[in-house]
Amino acid sequence: MAEGQEEVKLLGAGYSPFVFRVKWALKLKGIQYEYIEQDVINKSSLLLHYNPVHKKVPVLIHGGKPIAESVVIIEYLDETWKHNPILPVDPYQRAMARFWVKFIEEKLAEVIRRALLAEGEQQEKEVMQARDALKILDGELKDKKFFGGDTIGFVDIVLGGISVWLGVIEEAACFKVSDPIEFPRLKKWMDGISELSIIKEAVPPRDTLVLHFQKLRQYGLAKAAKK
Amino acid sequence: MAEGQEEVKLLGAGYSPFVFRVKWALKLKGIQYEYIEQDVINKSSLLLHYNPVHKKVPVLIHGGKPIAESVVIIEYLDETWKHNPILPVDPYQRAMARFWVKFIEEKLAEVIRRALLAEGEQQEKEVMQARDALKILDGELKDKKFFGGDTIGFVDIVLGGISVWLGVIEEAACFKVSDPIEFPRLKKWMDGISELSIIKEAVPPRDTLVLHFQKLRQYGLAKAAKK
Repeated sequence: MAEGQEEVKLLGAGYSPFVFRVKWALKLKGIQYEYIEQDVINKSSLLLHYNPVHKKVPVLIHGGKPIAESVVIIEYLDETWKHNPILPVDPYQRAMARFWVKFIEEKLAEVIRRALLAEGEQQEKEVMQARDALKILDGELKDKKFFGGDTIGFVDIVLGGISVWLGVIEEAACFKVSDPIEFPRLKKWMDGISELSIIKEAVPPRDTLVLHFQKLRQYGLAKAAKK
Repeated sequence: MAEGQEEVKLLGAGYSPFVFRVKWALKLKGIQYEYIEQDVINKSSLLLHYNPVHKKVPVLIHGGKPIAESVVIIEYLDETWKHNPILPVDPYQRAMARFWVKFIEEKLAEVIRRALLAEGEQQEKEVMQARDALKILDGELKDKKFFGGDTIGFVDIVLGGISVWLGVIEEAACFKVSDPIEFPRLKKWMDGISELSIIKEAVPPRDTLVLHFQKLRQYGLAKAAKK
């Protein structure tokens, strides 16, 4: 059996923007897969077995072999199923896509995660950093329809999950990173991706998400207070 | 002129483990390049022009086009100059290499950077995290000669810079992450890479490095105290 024809499973959690990225990439490739929802508080033996290092979703299992980390999974999907490419073909453009993905991971996703679990001055500091990152991304987008040009690419998928979730996390943790007026190009891009069926199909109802992130925040703050 | 034949320049700084990674990859590929040392406190207009987002070294300039972030540069080099491959060919093995590189970036390099700029309890917390990461890497290495198997690969290059620098940073910031006895396989791997000529050629004298990181620590602590 060719590599691409082996069984594909995805360990995920509905509330996770990182799982959403992988679902989006799988959809773009038209790959059939079995989705297995995980409880990430009471972790299943399946999750611990397939992602012993981070014990987190998403985990893609292809022909029995696990891959963790959403951005690593997306590159794997793109190299294994070559149709509907997600990364550009040109090495320089690929490097640029990877540069922006790393930027989003470190300067936005991680910062928003910290803002969700912080209070007061510390939270304000994180919020300012996230705003700076959005400003830079707004500048990078220029007047392109997508970061990938005319079609959705690696950067769009990686940022897309975060941007859809940002409003939810802001509400759950009582902060505000972004006023759409400040970032007109990002706003237009966001409006564009919000129209996609994947957003409507794979993103849980807003109220459920807000409640989930409120719980996550309380859990995180209580844990930090104990230390 | 074919892509690989255009002029290659590297903006670097002798004390940087991230620049060292790129020098190592360039050497493995046998790529000729012009090295331009940068002052990263008083940043040159060249550096600001070529890396406006992070304003940091390393920056590779190939045919006039800049690429920042050491791990992005290494993948670019590997995709542009295909001889002496750094990443494996098989997509699953490539994903595993990228997984570990991301792990090293987030759970070790970033943690050691924070430990360098922290004191007291906060520093202890970072040191414990770095130790956990080393333990996991020791387990992953198993009895392989290199993370890449019999030859040096992506993970070896990315971890190599850090491991060579770790002792220096420990001395400069008065902490101790690693006792080699705890990590026998990593110790053996370290001994192996320490023998390489690249280490002897590209790593500055230890005393100079310690002094540099002591200054960096004082600068960082003073900056944090002002906030």
